[in-house]
Amino acid sequence: MANPQEKAKVAPIIIAIEPFGGSLRNHMPQLPLIFFDDAAVTRGDGIFETILLHDGQPINLDQHMQRFQHSARLLDLPEPSQHVWLRATEEAVRQWSALSHEDATCTWAYTRGRVSTGIPSAWLTVSALDTKIYQQREHGLSVITSPRGYSIDTTLASSLAEQQTAPWLAIGAKTLSYAANMAAQRYAIAHGFDDVIYVDGDRVLEATTASVITVRGKKIRTPLAKNGDIMTGTSQAAIFSYAEKHGWNCKLKELDLDYCLNKADSVWLVSSVRGPVRVKRINDKKLPKPDNETAVRTLLNTAIMQA
Amino acid sequence: MANPQEKAKVAPIIIAIEPFGGSLRNHMPQLPLIFFDDAAVTRGDGIFETILLHDGQPINLDQHMQRFQHSARLLDLPEPSQHVWLRATEEAVRQWSALSHEDATCTWAYTRGRVSTGIPSAWLTVSALDTKIYQQREHGLSVITSPRGYSIDTTLASSLAEQQTAPWLAIGAKTLSYAANMAAQRYAIAHGFDDVIYVDGDRVLEATTASVITVRGKKIRTPLAKNGDIMTGTSQAAIFSYAEKHGWNCKLKELDLDYCLNKADSVWLVSSVRGPVRVKRINDKKLPKPDNETAVRTLLNTAIMQA
Repeated sequence: MANPQEKAKVAPIIIAIEPFGGSLRNHMPQLPLIFFDDAAVTRGDGIFETILLHDGQPINLDQHMQRFQHSARLLDLPEPSQHVWLRATEEAVRQWSALSHEDATCTWAYTRGRVSTGIPSAWLTVSALDTKIYQQREHGLSVITSPRGYSIDTTLASSLAEQQTAPWLAIGAKTLSYAANMAAQRYAIAHGFDDVIYVDGDRVLEATTASVITVRGKKIRTPLAKNGDIMTGTSQAAIFSYAEKHGWNCKLKELDLDYCLNKADSVWLVSSVRGPVRVKRINDKKLPKPDNETAVRTLLNTAIMQA
Repeated sequence: MANPQEKAKVAPIIIAIEPFGGSLRNHMPQLPLIFFDDAAVTRGDGIFETILLHDGQPINLDQHMQRFQHSARLLDLPEPSQHVWLRATEEAVRQWSALSHEDATCTWAYTRGRVSTGIPSAWLTVSALDTKIYQQREHGLSVITSPRGYSIDTTLASSLAEQQTAPWLAIGAKTLSYAANMAAQRYAIAHGFDDVIYVDGDRVLEATTASVITVRGKKIRTPLAKNGDIMTGTSQAAIFSYAEKHGWNCKLKELDLDYCLNKADSVWLVSSVRGPVRVKRINDKKLPKPDNETAVRTLLNTAIMQA
């Protein structure tokens, strides 16, 4: 994974998808794509997935497809055709690979569509990685911890006499209404950090766009969600599945901040495109480099790449 | 306000705004407007306002401008130029008025812009009203109550030793990350209602896109927010300001559901474009038509229109 910072970036590939018929068409990145009345633009009303392309392959595709379809169900969007999205992804990968051997980000987007048509909008893009990602992969990152700012209520007695968590929160769906996560990242950067890890009291939850993983001896841990307050991570799932088969003890457990700061050998953020990135600082505490940093990074990377 | 349901709708007017220089250009609604990498599309990262055009005038413009600028500050967007947005609005109103005398919706949108340019995207649209709005203005609506599904934490000790509500929630900002409100509306409609009024225990908060107002004798009430859990309503503010001068007693107060159901003479949802709409049913309880319905509607309407 050479750092292509200095090279001119390859132009993004955009494939517009007709969500029902499944026809595909390349769209020029120099031209606008979305209409003024698309629910994605007016209300952040849609879903997305972000997938790493590496060595001409989309990584961890099954997990992304599962979460994509799950998100669509939670938002009452018509079921995205697995066949169509895989075909579009294959086509985009083929086009990208003809231009570049660098890693790339493939993003799937699927919205409620235009008010005037009621037909969902669907497209995918393949773009060069942000150079920040290469830096973080190589040098790790620093995070601040902070409460998320709200708590999801456990039991809701709606007047419909159903006991359920408010369905419109679409908890677990990866929706386009992501402004708060972006603002949290800006907040961290403005304070000299790279990212935020959300905490609930002492409970560690997740970073703004990544799962938290700790390694201690042969134990790998990731925080256990309560009431869906942590997004299920596709990379975390891949790591657990692979590492478990290779002699590691992997568990979802309640993790407190003290464990991350003082007990774990190393703390990692894992996300699809960034991959595993070691946390080198949490708040004012430096996390020393563990002896097995390279071995752990290789393990996590291999796990993600093989998924 | 004739019901133009049967007439062909006038095509929307779109004016793209260059946010710094302030140049304006009309954009065809038949062509896409937004690029694939605009933060509005990828993350719901932007703000908006929705303004009623009535009799060739944008209504309650000052309040909308104040909230728009407040939202921009909360989201760390460059300050929108009041002059530019007013000029664009004036131009759009002029164009609309040449085509139609019907009410219309003017929407301002202002986003963090394209990843590739870092320049905010800014545009406004003027569109014919949804026919549903005419129906609700005339016939009122029915609502279900339900908890919002999450609570905003009161005090947050972030690791930066600042005691503040998580700034990234941008509480009080009208952001494009609105998918949950849209989902709540769909939920209400799927259950045979028109909208949801959020409650916190017995406390009445607000509807998905409207303020709640109650009238009892000469008393007008709207729920008092706790930790910013209710969006400040531009129409509610206009009503309070006008009605107070005309002999009504107007107060922000904690309102419980029982007060709405059993004590108030009438309950109203007020929002910019829809105007005042009487709530005719809350859950399984019908709210009878008050003797002064027409007088109250006229009062609320006049207040909004004069703002």
